[in-house]
Amino acid sequence: MLTAADIMTKDVATIRSSATVAEAVRLMKARDWRTLIVDRRHPQDAYGIISHSDIVSKVIAYGKDPSKVRVYEIMTKPCIVVNPDLGVEYIARLFKDHHLSQAPVIQGKLLGIITLSDIIAKSQFVERPRTILLEQELQDAIRKSREVCAKTSPDSEECAAAWDVVDELQSEIAHQEAKRIEKTAFEEFCEEFPEAMRGGELDRWCSG
Amino acid sequence: MLTAADIMTKDVATIRSSATVAEAVRLMKARDWRTLIVDRRHPQDAYGIISHSDIVSKVIAYGKDPSKVRVYEIMTKPCIVVNPDLGVEYIARLFKDHHLSQAPVIQGKLLGIITLSDIIAKSQFVERPRTILLEQELQDAIRKSREVCAKTSPDSEECAAAWDVVDELQSEIAHQEAKRIEKTAFEEFCEEFPEAMRGGELDRWCSG
Amino acid sequence: MLTAADIMTKDVATIRSSATVAEAVRLMKARDWRTLIVDRRHPQDAYGIISHSDIVSKVIAYGKDPSKVRVYEIMTKPCIVVNPDLGVEYIARLFKDHHLSQAPVIQGKLLGIITLSDIIAKSQFVERPRTILLEQELQDAIRKSREVCAKTSPDSEECAAAWDVVDELQSEIAHQEAKRIEKTAFEEFCEEFPEAMRGGELDRWCSG
Amino acid sequence: MLTAADIMTKDVATIRSSATVAEAVRLMKARDWRTLIVDRRHPQDAYGIISHSDIVSKVIAYGKDPSKVRVYEIMTKPCIVVNPDLGVEYIARLFKDHHLSQAPVIQGKLLGIITLSDIIAKSQFVERPRTILLEQELQDAIRKSREVCAKTSPDSEECAAAWDVVDELQSEIAHQEAKRIEKTAFEEFCEEFPEAMRGGELDRWCSG
Amino acid sequence: MLTAADIMTKDVATIRSSATVAEAVRLMKARDWRTLIVDRRHPQDAYGIISHSDIVSKVIAYGKDPSKVRVYEIMTKPCIVVNPDLGVEYIARLFKDHHLSQAPVIQGKLLGIITLSDIIAKSQFVERPRTILLEQELQDAIRKSREVCAKTSPDSEECAAAWDVVDELQSEIAHQEAKRIEKTAFEEFCEEFPEAMRGGELDRWCSG
Amino acid sequence: MLTAADIMTKDVATIRSSATVAEAVRLMKARDWRTLIVDRRHPQDAYGIISHSDIVSKVIAYGKDPSKVRVYEIMTKPCIVVNPDLGVEYIARLFKDHHLSQAPVIQGKLLGIITLSDIIAKSQFVERPRTILLEQELQDAIRKSREVCAKTSPDSEECAAAWDVVDELQSEIAHQEAKRIEKTAFEEFCEEFPEAMRGGELDRWCSG
Repeated sequence: MLTAADIMTKDVATIRSSATVAEAVRLMKARDWRTLIVDRRHPQDAYGIISHSDIVSKVIAYGKDPSKVRVYEIMTKPCIVVNPDLGVEYIARLFKDHHLSQAPVIQGKLLGIITLSDIIAKSQFVERPRTILLEQELQDAIRKSREVCAKTSPDSEECAAAWDVVDELQSEIAHQEAKRIEKTAFEEFCEEFPEAMRGGELDRWCSG
Repeated sequence: MLTAADIMTKDVATIRSSATVAEAVRLMKARDWRTLIVDRRHPQDAYGIISHSDIVSKVIAYGKDPSKVRVYEIMTKPCIVVNPDLGVEYIARLFKDHHLSQAPVIQGKLLGIITLSDIIAKSQFVERPRTILLEQELQDAIRKSREVCAKTSPDSEECAAAWDVVDELQSEIAHQEAKRIEKTAFEEFCEEFPEAMRGGELDRWCSG
Repeated sequence: MLTAADIMTKDVATIRSSATVAEAVRLMKARDWRTLIVDRRHPQDAYGIISHSDIVSKVIAYGKDPSKVRVYEIMTKPCIVVNPDLGVEYIARLFKDHHLSQAPVIQGKLLGIITLSDIIAKSQFVERPRTILLEQELQDAIRKSREVCAKTSPDSEECAAAWDVVDELQSEIAHQEAKRIEKTAFEEFCEEFPEAMRGGELDRWCSG
Repeated sequence: MLTAADIMTKDVATIRSSATVAEAVRLMKARDWRTLIVDRRHPQDAYGIISHSDIVSKVIAYGKDPSKVRVYEIMTKPCIVVNPDLGVEYIARLFKDHHLSQAPVIQGKLLGIITLSDIIAKSQFVERPRTILLEQELQDAIRKSREVCAKTSPDSEECAAAWDVVDELQSEIAHQEAKRIEKTAFEEFCEEFPEAMRGGELDRWCSG
Repeated sequence: MLTAADIMTKDVATIRSSATVAEAVRLMKARDWRTLIVDRRHPQDAYGIISHSDIVSKVIAYGKDPSKVRVYEIMTKPCIVVNPDLGVEYIARLFKDHHLSQAPVIQGKLLGIITLSDIIAKSQFVERPRTILLEQELQDAIRKSREVCAKTSPDSEECAAAWDVVDELQSEIAHQEAKRIEKTAFEEFCEEFPEAMRGGELDRWCSG
Repeated sequence: MLTAADIMTKDVATIRSSATVAEAVRLMKARDWRTLIVDRRHPQDAYGIISHSDIVSKVIAYGKDPSKVRVYEIMTKPCIVVNPDLGVEYIARLFKDHHLSQAPVIQGKLLGIITLSDIIAKSQFVERPRTILLEQELQDAIRKSREVCAKTSPDSEECAAAWDVVDELQSEIAHQEAKRIEKTAFEEFCEEFPEAMRGGELDRWCSG
């Protein structure tokens, strides 16, 4: 799976929070940047962000003079940040859930920025749709579980551990697609081998 | 004041609502379009719109296969449209109020599209902030009203009509800046000429 | 399909943005109007709107004196406007998407106003539900496509054009009902005539 | 202060949640009702409500056949209810905070319904704005406190209790108007009589 | 069904709206309260509420000095109140619809408070899920209706009344689960006894 | 300033996304946890979170059987995460902006969890309000700048650098309090030493 580090733009401009919006606009126009990061003053400080949308909504919409408005008055701070390891589909979900158009990628320090356009342009979602890949991974895991359980026994530790992997994968797919699972692969397995049974505080088991 | 017609992008791509999202993405990549307009089928039909944000939020976030999802499933329709005559600051306010990133410009037919970036790039808000221009217009109108009232009389029809213009301008500035007016220019005038008085159902008058 | 022009109320009251809310209330009570339109000052200006809801939420809820509050302080401007040609179901969708209770109908100038009650009272949705009408139109289009393709050939220009109409209609119904199409009418046709095939950059084709 | 009981409409129509939307529309049209109450089935049940807005947003916007949709599919249940004793300005604030257009008035059983129009038509907010009345009440309470403290002593029980009333009134006004109090009337009093002092866990005192 | 009275916490702390936030925090810490109720000043007054969330969002997030901020500046008033008779599932729905974390239980006077944790801890939703109970109640009602109709006749008053109960129960279940009913139990009955028919303004009937 | 690491709760429970909600509830009740973290399956995976609110809103409100609903169906994933270095006031702002009640503290791996109650209980905001501390820091920085500029000269590099620090601090305070700065400390300094002047593309300077 592609990650934030794979699709982010590394060329990020930063600006001081005490700069004027007119300065921010000049900086944006200089390089066709749509977003500037407001740097931290110290390690406990938060990153801020200022975008085209902030300037339109908070300066132009009120007819304000951008040379009289400072960046700190219109920036979003703290902003939601993305971990460089995070997979593209989770970034998309995060953007959707919080109505983001961009977010900085941070690990200790500022590494880059991700925008909606980066996700569209670089995420290979047309060529390799996520759920198709996951579905293949799931089929592999189910086959492997059945093999393990056949080699050992339906109530062996190894068999149980293999089905745990299947369960988690199936949950990931169901969460990704916002669907319910009617019958899990393990439940189907249980119907074939009703004697397979496991205990434990929070564990699942065949109810046969 | 610049209008929608002045800042819109005339090169707009349209797509059928029955096309797949994969087709929409190919079309977007071909010309670096971030938005496609979904055309009307007949005059009573509404325009639709599909943006990078729709594709990220409704396809990638769920790991869906874009060649299996159709445009009509993720488009926004009807979309909010902009009149070509509308002034830039009102477009900015409309975008702010409804969290828009883009909108088609329509008059009878599709004329163009306006995005946040068009507003930033072409609206001259740095060089000519709207409230400064309005403030000058207001000062001119006040001076003219005082002249008219001096030439005629403080309770003449012409004097009243001139102050009406001032009142409306002052309201426009106050609404633009989301401020209250403590004392209108007319009220100040009233204090100098308390005899100026007007009637009428919904009219204002000097309460002196 | 009924349009905005068919169901709007033509008797609309306008008010100046510099008028007081007390004046607006008097005007509303005079004719049982629930909404007033705030007129434009010039062609680049936007229409505004003031409703019972604005007065309750922004004046009464704060115990303010309505003779001290001006219309521009509580109006919504710019407001979302409706084109006179727009079909009733799209108006309903627009009202739903943007939580509207009313909207002015504009074409160049103010033509009327549409409220939730107008939609209920005049839209014939009980007698003639939209999706039933669309479904009939779809069946007609499918029959016509099959006839055209039989007369010409499954891979003729005319056959393809006829199926395009079906596709668009089916998308409109699916979007209206917020449903997915499992198999399009054209795909069903393809299964009968797998040789029907078309090319083109963004075109659909039988994948048989 | 006028209360919910004073301004509510007592003529309320109820409907079963299993009725069709077509039945609800017929009932609404019969008497020009804009809202119907969905009655409770038993005392632990909640009241529901169905309005013009629900029908437009959830039936017409999707082109659905209202004779196929049931009231329970589109009603709001439980709905926010109003106590008959609640003052008009608090009702207005409740409507504003939760974007209500109407609410049933309940005390044990359904007493009536209040709409935005009832608040506009019957609340006397033009003639008797709430904050003006509260301001008079405040001035009376301050005068009375000063009298009590003069008669007894600035650090008497009675004096403290009188200033408590002032404090609460001043808070009510400040909350109503969404304003801050820079210096309370009691703090002004303290500056005159710095020896006035009170203790207690959560009590206020002159910090002189 | 458990009600608000069954699961509420009766030990509720109240505070004056003129108290400082620092006082509110001291009171909360004293007893591990997460919510304080702001009492009414008179019967037309509304209840207010102040929670941990208000203090974090409106005081700490702005770095304000809590000994300078008063409760009335950050409280929610009027707050949504719960009737002591209301069933737990409706309370949960109310909390969900209005994003509540707590609400006072009121009947004439303040009886207690309900929080998310009270609902989790005391509502027996794990042992006795509501829809399972309702489903049993429905089966009983259907059986009873069939018995009544068999004893009397399919078009008797008693039969119709019995099916009314079934209809309402089925609607309650469908609303609870946010599902549609494809075919009601009465409609199934109608197919067996097509002659059962009823009239009346808003009544349902077998369409056979 | 206290940081996330200082106020977080380190005792965090995790749960598999394929567990049932009934299991989650048992785990929560075991230790009075209000929140569980849903662990990652691999490094590109996102953390999830499940709270009392999710269970009330998505299970109890619909009367669902918690032993039939899985954690992945109701969890929030990805969730907004907090960096262990982040200052308490920024955490509060983040919670406010995104309506959070809790968030995991992550750096590479899961370190702890922060809730509204942690912020209230451990952030020392009553004893040491943030803006008072910042105000002292600002006064120190201004004094130091004036000293540096006196020792060197008003247009020295060192003087400019010192005022940069002041500017940023003043912006931080203004952003924290959501206020505007009418005249910056540097602008006041400029009025005393109008000759102090600096150039540079994005730099500020005395405009005297």
